[in-house]
Amino acid sequence: MSQIMNSYVDKFTESLNQTKLDSVVNTQLEESMRYSLLAGGKRIRPVLLLMTLSMLKTDINKGMETAKALEMIHTYSLIHDDLPAMDNDDYRRGMKTNHKIYGDATAILAGDALLTKAFELITKDTYIEADDKVKLIRLLSESAGHQGMVGGQVLDMESENKEISLDTLRKIHRYKTGALIRFSVVAACTIAKVNSKTFLLLDSFSQELGLIFQIKDDLLDIEGDFDKIGKSVGSDVANHKSTYVSLLGKTNTKVALEQHVNQALYLLEQLEDQYNTEELKSLTKLFANREN
Amino acid sequence: MSQIMNSYVDKFTESLNQTKLDSVVNTQLEESMRYSLLAGGKRIRPVLLLMTLSMLKTDINKGMETAKALEMIHTYSLIHDDLPAMDNDDYRRGMKTNHKIYGDATAILAGDALLTKAFELITKDTYIEADDKVKLIRLLSESAGHQGMVGGQVLDMESENKEISLDTLRKIHRYKTGALIRFSVVAACTIAKVNSKTFLLLDSFSQELGLIFQIKDDLLDIEGDFDKIGKSVGSDVANHKSTYVSLLGKTNTKVALEQHVNQALYLLEQLEDQYNTEELKSLTKLFANREN
Repeated sequence: MSQIMNSYVDKFTESLNQTKLDSVVNTQLEESMRYSLLAGGKRIRPVLLLMTLSMLKTDINKGMETAKALEMIHTYSLIHDDLPAMDNDDYRRGMKTNHKIYGDATAILAGDALLTKAFELITKDTYIEADDKVKLIRLLSESAGHQGMVGGQVLDMESENKEISLDTLRKIHRYKTGALIRFSVVAACTIAKVNSKTFLLLDSFSQELGLIFQIKDDLLDIEGDFDKIGKSVGSDVANHKSTYVSLLGKTNTKVALEQHVNQALYLLEQLEDQYNTEELKSLTKLFANREN
Repeated sequence: MSQIMNSYVDKFTESLNQTKLDSVVNTQLEESMRYSLLAGGKRIRPVLLLMTLSMLKTDINKGMETAKALEMIHTYSLIHDDLPAMDNDDYRRGMKTNHKIYGDATAILAGDALLTKAFELITKDTYIEADDKVKLIRLLSESAGHQGMVGGQVLDMESENKEISLDTLRKIHRYKTGALIRFSVVAACTIAKVNSKTFLLLDSFSQELGLIFQIKDDLLDIEGDFDKIGKSVGSDVANHKSTYVSLLGKTNTKVALEQHVNQALYLLEQLEDQYNTEELKSLTKLFANREN
């Protein structure tokens, strides 16, 4: 996606490739898990976690297993989301979706296994102490579960083919995509043991970033390029989904995007006496200007 | 199922009923999670965990959250197993399956959320220290994931409509149902901080118990009574599944069952100088003689 992400993506991918997914029963399960996990993708959440750790002057290796756990959870959610029973998507990132290759049953179970593996990875981290592992697992499960991502997905489903308010749309995004983006930042704060002022500022920043990401996603759905975003353009309209654009119109959506970018940058500025916020600032702008 | 289980089932159910599953987005998700979690069932795994803890002279409250986590994982696996993409079952425990009530998409997500919640529950336990929480989460994720239950499920799926060996059948059971039954006992050993001799004996015992449970399941599938087992009799035959009975015949299956019962009781006897093993012995016999 960009230069500033590359070094983090490279380090993350190197570590991810080395993650053992040994089979004890020799089935297609691990192949199916690997297929989606290593399918590329932007690795936004791991990068955000590692970049925040780096800003907080903490060894990024301390966040590597948590970053992988996070990416596993993100990946499982995509596998399940793409199923015929859910969004019924045949392509993801320009590649066939998991169930199109391995079948629905294996795809369901590969998702289950990735979700489970995420928590196992954190328990086996050799850099962080037990207390922090427990905190991270608690945060991750809250972010990913019924009060986080999964809750948002169900609200999103129940809102299809319906007129919804902007408030409901914000709620969907706050949980469905926002919760894991927030976790990326808050996990870094936990690992770096920041003070409460820094925690609160970065927590707010992460929530702005989540909205920026989602608003841009809605814009890309009407303006994007299949070759770049790797999925059909206009799928929100085809699926009768409410988006920022359908509720606010394109012009006001762009204004809203700019407002959230300004707020995110403002929050980062409050940390500048202590930390070098340049990378996170660039990442924020990148989220708002990305083409995929 | 029986008198000796009742007091544990009652304590477990009381605690389970009080478990908060608050919604932040007011969807059907939590209702769907509760529907399957509170649908009854034999609560074998929680009872086994609590009963083992009790034998190990440890306050059973120390195992309550882990027991709930375990039951949540068992429940999620049933919800996903029943889906049209998997076993396509309309009834479970005499009640409509989750997806028949809430739809496939919500059922998939309810399963995901229960799996996620399981790990959250352990992190929030107020009885046990962080080190033990990390150990329990590691054990549980290993038991439930690709090297445990889910791995076994995929092997089971890939073995349908095929001639398989008794060795493969044992492998399926060791992982698919055995892993969580083993966890019930091993988790209790972890919480009670037993010595390695006790750990090894109880670990072996738990594996015998897993086999007893499964062999009896295969026998019930041909001999059981719909009203008692709450699902169709003969479904293994209908689904062309290999079972102990199809591979060994009914008589040899009963002999195998008896051998495993004797071995399980023998292992418990090795602990009698230190512990009162009466309840676990009764439970073992109950597993072998149950009618549902």
